[in-house]
Amino acid sequence: MSAFDELMAFQRETEALAQVEGRLHWDQETMMPRGSALQRGEELAALSAVLHARRVDPRVGEWLDRAEAPDEAGAAQLRLIRRSHERATRVPARLASEMARVTSLSQGIWAEARAKDDFAAFAPTLSDVVKLTRELADCLADGRDPYDALLDEYEPGATGESLSQMFGALRPRLVALRDRVMGSDRRPEALEGTFAEAGQLALSRELAEVFGYDFHRGRIDKAVHPFSSGSGADVRITMRTAADDPFNCFYSTIHEVGHAAYEQGIDDAYHLSPLGQGVSMGVHESQSRIYENQLGRSRAFTGFLFERMRDTFGEMSVTDVDAFFACVNRVTPGYIRTESDEVQYNLHILMRFDLERDLVSGKLAVADLEEAWNARFEQDFGRKVDRASNGCLQDVHWSLGLFGYFPTYTLGNVYAGCLHKALREAEPELDAALARGDTSPATGWLHRNLQRFGGLRAPRETVRHACGFEPSEEPLLEYLEQKFGAIYGV
Amino acid sequence: MSAFDELMAFQRETEALAQVEGRLHWDQETMMPRGSALQRGEELAALSAVLHARRVDPRVGEWLDRAEAPDEAGAAQLRLIRRSHERATRVPARLASEMARVTSLSQGIWAEARAKDDFAAFAPTLSDVVKLTRELADCLADGRDPYDALLDEYEPGATGESLSQMFGALRPRLVALRDRVMGSDRRPEALEGTFAEAGQLALSRELAEVFGYDFHRGRIDKAVHPFSSGSGADVRITMRTAADDPFNCFYSTIHEVGHAAYEQGIDDAYHLSPLGQGVSMGVHESQSRIYENQLGRSRAFTGFLFERMRDTFGEMSVTDVDAFFACVNRVTPGYIRTESDEVQYNLHILMRFDLERDLVSGKLAVADLEEAWNARFEQDFGRKVDRASNGCLQDVHWSLGLFGYFPTYTLGNVYAGCLHKALREAEPELDAALARGDTSPATGWLHRNLQRFGGLRAPRETVRHACGFEPSEEPLLEYLEQKFGAIYGV
Repeated sequence: MSAFDELMAFQRETEALAQVEGRLHWDQETMMPRGSALQRGEELAALSAVLHARRVDPRVGEWLDRAEAPDEAGAAQLRLIRRSHERATRVPARLASEMARVTSLSQGIWAEARAKDDFAAFAPTLSDVVKLTRELADCLADGRDPYDALLDEYEPGATGESLSQMFGALRPRLVALRDRVMGSDRRPEALEGTFAEAGQLALSRELAEVFGYDFHRGRIDKAVHPFSSGSGADVRITMRTAADDPFNCFYSTIHEVGHAAYEQGIDDAYHLSPLGQGVSMGVHESQSRIYENQLGRSRAFTGFLFERMRDTFGEMSVTDVDAFFACVNRVTPGYIRTESDEVQYNLHILMRFDLERDLVSGKLAVADLEEAWNARFEQDFGRKVDRASNGCLQDVHWSLGLFGYFPTYTLGNVYAGCLHKALREAEPELDAALARGDTSPATGWLHRNLQRFGGLRAPRETVRHACGFEPSEEPLLEYLEQKFGAIYGV
Repeated sequence: MSAFDELMAFQRETEALAQVEGRLHWDQETMMPRGSALQRGEELAALSAVLHARRVDPRVGEWLDRAEAPDEAGAAQLRLIRRSHERATRVPARLASEMARVTSLSQGIWAEARAKDDFAAFAPTLSDVVKLTRELADCLADGRDPYDALLDEYEPGATGESLSQMFGALRPRLVALRDRVMGSDRRPEALEGTFAEAGQLALSRELAEVFGYDFHRGRIDKAVHPFSSGSGADVRITMRTAADDPFNCFYSTIHEVGHAAYEQGIDDAYHLSPLGQGVSMGVHESQSRIYENQLGRSRAFTGFLFERMRDTFGEMSVTDVDAFFACVNRVTPGYIRTESDEVQYNLHILMRFDLERDLVSGKLAVADLEEAWNARFEQDFGRKVDRASNGCLQDVHWSLGLFGYFPTYTLGNVYAGCLHKALREAEPELDAALARGDTSPATGWLHRNLQRFGGLRAPRETVRHACGFEPSEEPLLEYLEQKFGAIYGV
């Protein structure tokens, strides 16, 4: 056996064990009895130690030194294995276990502080997390900016500087669009009434199928939070229902189907290898967002959804298909990122990005975070934060040590904008298909041009290859200005 | 850290990973999408390789050489770890992987042969399995009888010879009882009608609670086969429903709750250690059987079940509570072990035990198995086998290489008989409680005297300790002769 083949056989087992780890997390959120949490923690810790030991195994380094890639895909495999091996070996065991210990505690402290709207109760813990995060970043940085080293975990190749430029171009036009929309005298109707759970569940499954989710290699369950989990032949998603908010159920399903379709769509030959999963959080998010927003919230598709909802639930408070389109895309004042609309969502991310960069660099002290958050919110959203749970305590990410994660959401939207532009050029008849609930021209194009390649190319190159042009924020801005300009007459 | 503490910390991770393996099997039978089977195979193989590597890890041998047990429980831990380490190191990797390969294929070949009632189609594969099983037994035997080495995997300390004596004492009295019952002119009514699935599911959950199943640390799902899975704080069971056979649902639930109660009832201090699980298949089966039969099929408890079934399903074809008791305990001619009643069940096991011992020793050739099976069946059951799927192709066990497993079913019944005798002496008011659906005098006694100790004592010693007398087949025989003598007036 060649060094390359030996390495790939070893790596295949590692990937299989990583899938097992993912399945345990899925089980924890969907099936696990409540009293099993402590034991599950030990099970996950044991598996995580096994995975870590394999990633830092000295044989991996030796194989990497000797391995010769047989082709382009093989070269990409080696690149990704080397990256994982180097990252794992750079982090001392003491730091990794301290980080695991602190973040497992801090999540509970954060939840309690949020429930009490008391940032001060969370600040000391967050300080510990930030301190450990800086240590981690220093270990990983290898001469780079520490924040870039964190970002690299979620979006290989991206830098704080390049994102800062992109976000800098987004911000004024998004703020201006938000101002125009909020100043418009058009006020789309909200959807009133209650919607039976059985109908939501059935239509949610139908929408998953409409967007190409493969139930033969996946399943949908209810969970507190919607998520997608797993790669290759076992990709599961979750959804939730709320009687007065069926859009939450339907659009989070379509969003997760976007993630799942990426994983399910990767070339079978890459299964259980480093190429066999989405290449980055940003590219992943581009799939979930284009499914949810550019396709799912389009005028054409909302026409189909309007009919299917009427078939399922009977006559609704919104009786006109154009009003329904506006209703789905309503922009309303709000504090919470996850409940936000397409216009304001990225403004949420942009402020988190700036704040977390300053936290990591030390420019912003944790003690000053709430004030900085509230000031920036008022600047970009034109209103004051009323309480910490609507402000800097609303997201779980930082309590888990996830610094460098937030910007991938907006990067995903930017990539979705680029892909949507290219898709529209390639498939001029798309709207006619969407209007009858046929997403295949879009999902087929995304599969052929992006999803099937998995981790073959670097993230930005993956999108560039699919679009045929250099990705930028411009298509997203044009799409948002055009769509919301039309809905709000601004 | 002492050698003992180091060993126990290492072992704790191994146990946690073994729990993960169990959870994957549970998922496979309950939740896994059908198209994920191949990937799951790789996930399980990778995890199994990790577990094997830990069990044969040379450090375990070194720790065992140096470790000093702090107390009786510690000594039991060392004994069980040594046993697992020695068994794992005795089997060459080549043999283990060949066995895994052949048995994973043979299950499918068996299923196909069974569907076609064609033993000859399965015989060559079974020959391969038997050949590998003999090799395995030789590796493990260490001077003992090879069959005893196989048995030791499921029932440490038991020997073919001692079981043969016990089963030899059971057989004539069971055959005689079967003859008397079959010759009786009393024919208990069968339960007619169909029973709505929702009612079966609800009553099944209620029965699980009645028998003390802890839903906080477990869950019940539907599956093709009922089983119990997991130890400690996460013990899950499965059940099934058939519209015309509610007893199947209810009694398999109670049976699995018996297994689960054992696992859930073990002292928390033993969790994720070798003591933290049922000590043997036989002792495990004693719990499932005493829950299902001596308690669940007692006159007192069937009175409670009769009322709850009438509450749930309305008036039934059996309208009298004594007739209902007889109905639950009907003895009918049949070929299939898993559908058998208390009288005939052990006769099924006894013949499998004799046949598999002869297969392993070479006294019986695989080619002659069907003939030997059919001859023995006619001798013990008084009728001819009509086709192979009702005969030697009915069980999956041998196709999986599970030789030495069958006798633990009857050993479990024998142990249940002993425990039941001791329980009745300790709890003279038991029937009054059972009659009102209160199993706590029985389940409490079993918990205090057996379940909580887990693997602390050797299997037979575990039962002896609970009963206060040397286990034997006599109490089971007396119980069966008394109960079925009364029902059938013989």
